[in-house]
Amino acid sequence: MTQEAGAVRRGRRSGGGAARRAERTATRSEFSRFITRNVPDFEILNTEALEIIEANAETVLQEVGVNFVDNPAALALWKDAGADIDGERVRIPRGLARQLCATAPSTFTQHARNPERNVEIGGRNLVLAPVYGPPFVRDQAGGRRYATIEDFRNFVKLGQMSKWLHHSGGTVCEPTDVAVNKRHLDMLQAHMTLSDKPYMGSVTLPERAEDSIEMSRILFGSDFVDQHTVMTSLVNINSPLTFDSVMMGALEAYARANQAAIISPFIVGGAMAPVTVAGTLTQVLAEVMAGVAYSQLIRKGAPVVFGAFVTSIDMNSGAPTFGTPEAAQITLGAGQLARRLGLPYRSAGSFCGSKLPDAQAAYETANSLNIGLLSGVNFMLHACGWLEGGLVSCYEKYVMDADQLGVLHKLAAGVDISANGQGMDAIREVGPGGHFLGCAHTQDNYKDAFWRSGLLDYKPFETWEEEGARDTATLAAQKVQKMLGEYQAPAIDPGIAEALDDYVARKKAAVPDAFV
Amino acid sequence: MTQEAGAVRRGRRSGGGAARRAERTATRSEFSRFITRNVPDFEILNTEALEIIEANAETVLQEVGVNFVDNPAALALWKDAGADIDGERVRIPRGLARQLCATAPSTFTQHARNPERNVEIGGRNLVLAPVYGPPFVRDQAGGRRYATIEDFRNFVKLGQMSKWLHHSGGTVCEPTDVAVNKRHLDMLQAHMTLSDKPYMGSVTLPERAEDSIEMSRILFGSDFVDQHTVMTSLVNINSPLTFDSVMMGALEAYARANQAAIISPFIVGGAMAPVTVAGTLTQVLAEVMAGVAYSQLIRKGAPVVFGAFVTSIDMNSGAPTFGTPEAAQITLGAGQLARRLGLPYRSAGSFCGSKLPDAQAAYETANSLNIGLLSGVNFMLHACGWLEGGLVSCYEKYVMDADQLGVLHKLAAGVDISANGQGMDAIREVGPGGHFLGCAHTQDNYKDAFWRSGLLDYKPFETWEEEGARDTATLAAQKVQKMLGEYQAPAIDPGIAEALDDYVARKKAAVPDAFV
Repeated sequence: MTQEAGAVRRGRRSGGGAARRAERTATRSEFSRFITRNVPDFEILNTEALEIIEANAETVLQEVGVNFVDNPAALALWKDAGADIDGERVRIPRGLARQLCATAPSTFTQHARNPERNVEIGGRNLVLAPVYGPPFVRDQAGGRRYATIEDFRNFVKLGQMSKWLHHSGGTVCEPTDVAVNKRHLDMLQAHMTLSDKPYMGSVTLPERAEDSIEMSRILFGSDFVDQHTVMTSLVNINSPLTFDSVMMGALEAYARANQAAIISPFIVGGAMAPVTVAGTLTQVLAEVMAGVAYSQLIRKGAPVVFGAFVTSIDMNSGAPTFGTPEAAQITLGAGQLARRLGLPYRSAGSFCGSKLPDAQAAYETANSLNIGLLSGVNFMLHACGWLEGGLVSCYEKYVMDADQLGVLHKLAAGVDISANGQGMDAIREVGPGGHFLGCAHTQDNYKDAFWRSGLLDYKPFETWEEEGARDTATLAAQKVQKMLGEYQAPAIDPGIAEALDDYVARKKAAVPDAFV
Repeated sequence: MTQEAGAVRRGRRSGGGAARRAERTATRSEFSRFITRNVPDFEILNTEALEIIEANAETVLQEVGVNFVDNPAALALWKDAGADIDGERVRIPRGLARQLCATAPSTFTQHARNPERNVEIGGRNLVLAPVYGPPFVRDQAGGRRYATIEDFRNFVKLGQMSKWLHHSGGTVCEPTDVAVNKRHLDMLQAHMTLSDKPYMGSVTLPERAEDSIEMSRILFGSDFVDQHTVMTSLVNINSPLTFDSVMMGALEAYARANQAAIISPFIVGGAMAPVTVAGTLTQVLAEVMAGVAYSQLIRKGAPVVFGAFVTSIDMNSGAPTFGTPEAAQITLGAGQLARRLGLPYRSAGSFCGSKLPDAQAAYETANSLNIGLLSGVNFMLHACGWLEGGLVSCYEKYVMDADQLGVLHKLAAGVDISANGQGMDAIREVGPGGHFLGCAHTQDNYKDAFWRSGLLDYKPFETWEEEGARDTATLAAQKVQKMLGEYQAPAIDPGIAEALDDYVARKKAAVPDAFV
């Protein structure tokens, strides 16, 4: 046990440890509270359009229905609830799904092991979490390559140190050097020990969800986990209209344990949904309503999130495309539908199709981030680090995007209209032809007046040239190295750390490695 | 005379020439009509905040006032209108400026020599014009260098060929190899002959505005110019609260000729205006109201635009910064103020501080473009090509930004909620687990369903790598060469071209070159 960890342990014993730990952590890396919007949402659809889409979604559920595959227990629950069952097809009478959704909370707290990093998901809030799922990583020095557990840990460290990121996320990259049936253990352990921000659980098999819950019990204590939500996990729907038993198994495990799930259609428009925006919104709403209703059949009041992962498709190549206007319209419209359903909303992210962290990547990402903020998104997965259509977690893009998330914070704070904000004294003091830099109002306010990037170049051309004419990706590569070099793990009770070690070792030893 | 030009001339004589010319032009380069928004504006300020800012702006005009410098005629006009004159200071009684603004039209048509390229400025419309003012250019092959008239002509050609650009703009770069007192002639001639889109006039001296009007009379015919607006020019206010005689001289010339002017505070927040958003909005409103009111004293009904060029400042270096949240809030708020004043609104653009067309440039630009669309901007100057805080017109960034303007078009079109848009037949046809690519609805709609970039990379990684792993700037450099290679001048009556030549030659010969 290091002295530092010992001090923390003593702190915990004496009861004041959590506060002291938080204080010490704060000195290591700046941290921003999750966003609470003080600006309105952008409403792209009028009431008539919303009502048409809602009526159509009910028609889809009633007439077309959804499939619950390899899941007789789900079919039985649906039958009891009043649905019409035909093989694996579940047809849901008009109004039933929406009625079942009503017991899901409109907002919930996800707890972090550092209570200062708890997040409120829903309402006017926006919680930002990093990229999820890529099998590859890229950095400037090493190029594009399969991701390893070392990469995974690096991304968790970057997340812990990123001021504007509120959540440690889940599969920040796929650690392909660890057996498929064991990597969830290493991933969870990394989030739990290298970060004190909230995290996501595994969904790739129901028993991996159970592992996630068990490890959370070690981290938080069993009683705490029974009474609080400590994970928000990603449950994808197999669009169109299909709920497979793997994802539903994870949902069932989490709902039973009162842990949160994002129930999210995964749609490449034109392939998994109609080629039109209103058609896609109809299908998204039908799918989410069916999934959320099912979660409430498992456990009334289980926390869930209305998810919408939507891209359009390049009809020339079949490739998914990102940062497009159609995706923006769907993101905006789905936000309105989620609010009318009274559910927290997940969408948008640092989406791009580019192979490099270049201008394409940034245009596409900025399009999605801006629209995400204005759509009323409550949980933004993939908020930083996404590259190449989600195939790659990019180190440089991670810190580039994470820096831009600061823009969202300040924009969402709205306009200060207080007497100080109005600045009339300044206008009176300076007058026509004067200069504001030296006036009293500027001196009083300049420190917080303007958001400032921690990455981008604001230097004069000559200075910039002398310093090597670095582009954004190069500045980012240098920042990545600096951050990883300066990273310090947040303190953790060594008994807990050991117990997590033991659990992971025991579970790994119990079965042979599997790579499929 | 070439055969082609001869055909056009014959066409004009027989009366059907304009239509035939337009038809032939359309086959050369794709062209998009200006945007008419079918989506709402984003209202960041509530009514209470708007009323506070409006009341404060009246207080500024009444108590602090504005300076009209070296302009006794303006002071006399203001005195007659009821303002209080003290030296060069004009104090405007509460309500007077707003009352005078009421005679300015809320929307006007700017005519182009190709009538299909006329634009409507105001209302729900958004007209996109390129970068204005940089003394430098940059391209990948040649790096950063002083701009020449050859660069100027190249940018006009790119503008003519850019599908999503509606306006040829004004000083797309400063042709520094032409004498300061003559370059406006070459610039106007380039816009008039190399493009058939609408253009801007010179504002750098009143007599150069008169030249702009005279050359427009040659291009359109004197009667036409007397009766129609054929230029929209940029008149900057010397913020804070100062109207110099050079810019006012240009405004006076244009207003008298019923030609349009954008009356635009030029503000680096914290330097030329209070360091707060609400304070800056107050000053912007006061300045624009004074300027627009003055335009209406010159000529009631003269077409004007409420301008707002606003950046924030990096308090560490003093550099202006772009794509920031404070600029976004001001852009949004000023749009609300402009609509309440009943005036067309100019703001936003491809703003960035980066030295290269890299990710920083794209993030900052996308932030501003998106916010510009949602702010209800009616005329977006600098919509493409801006680099390095406006010091550089960048060839690559010009085509990169111009491509992204397509995103704005599609987003602004709103969501199709027709039966076809709803896509219920597709959902019924495909059902759970199916695939939409082959269904009838997709086949009927795929061509127009999704906006597609004409520049960005959508290829699989392996293909992209085989083709040289090009980043966005490299793709753009190749597109620039292709466009300039394929450029064809729009046909022009050779008599008109000759008359423009004569005018320019005569004016150039009349005075020696001056380079200050």
